[in-house]
Amino acid sequence: MTLVIYDISENRTRSRIATACRRFGLSRIQKSAFLGDISSARRRELVEVLKRLLRGEQGNIQVFVICRPDMALRTVIGEVLEEDEDDIIFV
Amino acid sequence: MTLVIYDISENRTRSRIATACRRFGLSRIQKSAFLGDISSARRRELVEVLKRLLRGEQGNIQVFVICRPDMALRTVIGEVLEEDEDDIIFV
Repeated sequence: MTLVIYDISENRTRSRIATACRRFGLSRIQKSAFLGDISSARRRELVEVLKRLLRGEQGNIQVFVICRPDMALRTVIGEVLEEDEDDIIFV
Repeated sequence: MTLVIYDISENRTRSRIATACRRFGLSRIQKSAFLGDISSARRRELVEVLKRLLRGEQGNIQVFVICRPDMALRTVIGEVLEEDEDDIIFV
């Protein structure tokens, strides 16, 4: 699995990064975190897109690879996030 | 490695979660993300602490395990975060 987490203060850049993550098939799991099962080739492509989007901006993006056995150890605490296109709601 | 990411709106709870992550030896890598090399026993203990801290509050915490080979595939884009006790600055 591919996990993308980001700290971006500028709204437009942050929303472009969210759009890019969705375009590559990741799903939002938190306001600034996306997770999805994509190939390593697609992950490398996404990283290049994210680099271009962040160029010259303040912020930090981290892309992690998480193998299946490790995903089985994932713990989620609190409400699961439900997301419609623009808004993020915890239910 | 253990990665903790969180979406917590309430300031006091959010800072308690950050304090707990630090106490268990994790380092902040983004405003709402901590990473560190701790034992699975200590990770389970941390999960229990985080559950207690979030009880009755709105928000979401996710705890991931990331093995060494996967950590080698991690990509960091943008500035690396430098953190003194209270403030977070990208450099």
